[in-house]
Amino acid sequence: MTEPKSFHMTPEEFRRHGHAVVDWIADYHSQVESFPVLSRVQPGEIRSKLPAQAPERGESFEQILGDMERLILPGITHWQSPNFYAYFPSNASGPAILGDLLSAGLGVQGMLWSTSPACTEVETHVLDWLVAMLGLPEKFLSTGNGGGVIQDTASSGSLCALLAARERATEFASNRKGCDGRLAAYCSTQTHSSVEKAMKIAGLGADNLRAIEVDESFAMRPEALARQIDVDVKAGLIPCFVCATVGTTSSGAIDPVREIGGICGNLWLHVDAAMSGTAALCPEFRFVHDGVELADSYCFNPHKWMFTNFDCSVFYVADRKSLIQTLSVLPEYLRNQATESGAVIDYRDWHIPLGRRFRSLKLWFVIRHYGIEGLQHHVREHVRLAQEFVAWVSGDARFELAAPARLNLVCFRLRAGDQATQALMERLNASGDLYLTHTKLEGKFTLRLCVGQTNTQARHVERAWQRIQEETGRLGSS
Amino acid sequence: MTEPKSFHMTPEEFRRHGHAVVDWIADYHSQVESFPVLSRVQPGEIRSKLPAQAPERGESFEQILGDMERLILPGITHWQSPNFYAYFPSNASGPAILGDLLSAGLGVQGMLWSTSPACTEVETHVLDWLVAMLGLPEKFLSTGNGGGVIQDTASSGSLCALLAARERATEFASNRKGCDGRLAAYCSTQTHSSVEKAMKIAGLGADNLRAIEVDESFAMRPEALARQIDVDVKAGLIPCFVCATVGTTSSGAIDPVREIGGICGNLWLHVDAAMSGTAALCPEFRFVHDGVELADSYCFNPHKWMFTNFDCSVFYVADRKSLIQTLSVLPEYLRNQATESGAVIDYRDWHIPLGRRFRSLKLWFVIRHYGIEGLQHHVREHVRLAQEFVAWVSGDARFELAAPARLNLVCFRLRAGDQATQALMERLNASGDLYLTHTKLEGKFTLRLCVGQTNTQARHVERAWQRIQEETGRLGSS
Repeated sequence: MTEPKSFHMTPEEFRRHGHAVVDWIADYHSQVESFPVLSRVQPGEIRSKLPAQAPERGESFEQILGDMERLILPGITHWQSPNFYAYFPSNASGPAILGDLLSAGLGVQGMLWSTSPACTEVETHVLDWLVAMLGLPEKFLSTGNGGGVIQDTASSGSLCALLAARERATEFASNRKGCDGRLAAYCSTQTHSSVEKAMKIAGLGADNLRAIEVDESFAMRPEALARQIDVDVKAGLIPCFVCATVGTTSSGAIDPVREIGGICGNLWLHVDAAMSGTAALCPEFRFVHDGVELADSYCFNPHKWMFTNFDCSVFYVADRKSLIQTLSVLPEYLRNQATESGAVIDYRDWHIPLGRRFRSLKLWFVIRHYGIEGLQHHVREHVRLAQEFVAWVSGDARFELAAPARLNLVCFRLRAGDQATQALMERLNASGDLYLTHTKLEGKFTLRLCVGQTNTQARHVERAWQRIQEETGRLGSS
Repeated sequence: MTEPKSFHMTPEEFRRHGHAVVDWIADYHSQVESFPVLSRVQPGEIRSKLPAQAPERGESFEQILGDMERLILPGITHWQSPNFYAYFPSNASGPAILGDLLSAGLGVQGMLWSTSPACTEVETHVLDWLVAMLGLPEKFLSTGNGGGVIQDTASSGSLCALLAARERATEFASNRKGCDGRLAAYCSTQTHSSVEKAMKIAGLGADNLRAIEVDESFAMRPEALARQIDVDVKAGLIPCFVCATVGTTSSGAIDPVREIGGICGNLWLHVDAAMSGTAALCPEFRFVHDGVELADSYCFNPHKWMFTNFDCSVFYVADRKSLIQTLSVLPEYLRNQATESGAVIDYRDWHIPLGRRFRSLKLWFVIRHYGIEGLQHHVREHVRLAQEFVAWVSGDARFELAAPARLNLVCFRLRAGDQATQALMERLNASGDLYLTHTKLEGKFTLRLCVGQTNTQARHVERAWQRIQEETGRLGSS
């Protein structure tokens, strides 16, 4: 029998090219420390090197892979460099990358239990593991009324929480009839912008989001929250949702979840612990979860600080029925016996998209490769390095700390003011030796140094501080 | 200098384990044809084999990889089997898997241009390539006022289109003040359930979605659409959005986009071509895009039928400003020079999540590996095989076609009725020889056979038809 004409890569070709790609990545990770962290290309520079039209005929894989070095690398800002301290980390690791590769190789859809039972059951199981690993309340376990699901990002988690809150408050009438502009929601002035975005998406309106004032540590003031809820109720609004943050993006502030939960009553309390939740792997940092048993939903991102490559945001609810009832639509073509038996989870009803990858494989691989012990070790080390950095900043009279640094995010600035601080950042980033980003705290330009990249070690943080001191010295003389 | 204690996988370990994983996938793809397509496990069976607690100490990679075979494979429904005809395909290919692997290895975030310029520019560029490749209108090009973005799924694309429609209709007041229950939207009775889900999410309410009746080919009746819009306007509603489908999920029906566009006026017209858009790679199938120049937005999924593994859904808008204004929120910590220059695209404003992977790498790899010629060849072959299957069904008096099969989806049933048709499906799926799913058309239980899996060849479709005939024969005698 002659094989039909084919342009597909055969399994044997895949094996050969796959080894080359694995080698490319191993080499990249061996060298990444030596690259300028922030890409130096100008807008349009990468595009200008690409052909105007797609190729009519296929190209060799060697040629395609060769272009990674030639065309792509100059346009990369190296998030996997140990000298990356910007934003929040988006860290990765060998076991995560290989778990993700297996997920791509299997190429299954997990929208329904029946479309690949292992995809659903490993996810449910590993997220139950994490409840114990992080000291989260048992009500988030799938074995009770709750459960976890992997979403793409904490933004999507916040949106799902807000939607479930909206429906619970309106007895599912918003889903049917649409919103009426009377629901109000609450966060702090420091809450991530995704909550404002979610208010817009969910049809509640950004004007109905109250940004509650914060205290000197940039944490939400519970008494101000209580006051605002009262004002809104008296004005005829229906408060339905509060987002508390454990580790704000700007400064790592930790909202007082217990006090906020005491105020919430029947309002839906969502806790966003996108980066800082990972700290709870270590018992000594478990204070970050104080009061979380009062939350209706909770989110943290293993793709930030738990060595699991993007995307992997874990979202828990205490009452999965309210979430499922909010997001479920069941057309005939998705009906199946397993779903109708009620004995299975169909994760399509737990988030916005229908299709979904086998994302729990990489998380399962990470937890098994490191073990709890290994994860704790590296999280502890990152916090220790950040705290050393805090001590150095505190000991240099040219600098001031801009916020308490309780974990791995340090906010600091030059006493010389905004212009000097911004100039320092730009010089450091232009040097390529490290990359950090800024925020504003109390109106002042503030640098953020977040220690969380997988391979960041003492020598990198020491070198970062050395470079910061050097450039600060040059600023003075320029 | 002694290296600090580490639990990380070193680049050399990654190289070794990575080769093993690549080999595992190559072997899997070589054997996948021999596996029962639909997993045979019972609910809870996979979980029951997993340890109750996460491991305290790390395990060897050999042990972890070994469990793929032992624990995971039995729970896999094999979407990459050439005998998979269920739902829509979620096909993959070697170049896509390797492009995705490089994306995981680089581990960059593409939320802003500046966080990795190549991630944004390759995406913009390749999506411009696709405009020409699919014969889409030039208004979707990024070089004009439009542009494309990769989203996770067509569900998310529909939601973004609906949100932009909502804001355009209310002059961005819904974003600020929330919805008021007066906006109406339109689809057909055959439109994918994600549009109803989007109505709920966006705060418009499922009751304000009108499911317009269809003709005998299951395509939307434009005159019925016009009538309903009139009725709604007279009732004081504000029509804002129409979703036309090119290739419905149930039957592959193609809504008359040109006529619908003529009716839309200032309503936002979104075209969902999730699977069938790929057919337009071949000039002879470009009829699927007739009238798309009248659309405000358009979506198709390379992760369905264009050999690019999930997730890769391409979403175009004619006026990117309206989309960006709908979804943009700019906190201080994301401000940067490139964004403020206005010279770059920041894709975070084009979809729901903030973070995003370098998903265009796999799409770029696929287009370059196959070339336009190779992609056309395989799409043509899938359509040819489906049309052969149509001829076989038509020639067997026990069967009837349930809908016109214009491309690669065939809907058919036994003349003996629903029970027999359902029993046939269950026997086929239980046999493991192939996997197909059902829908209801005109109230009747109908089988769907979709030819689109990467490796499906003539011999697989011939065998499928043989098995269908065999099981039908046994049905009669049982």
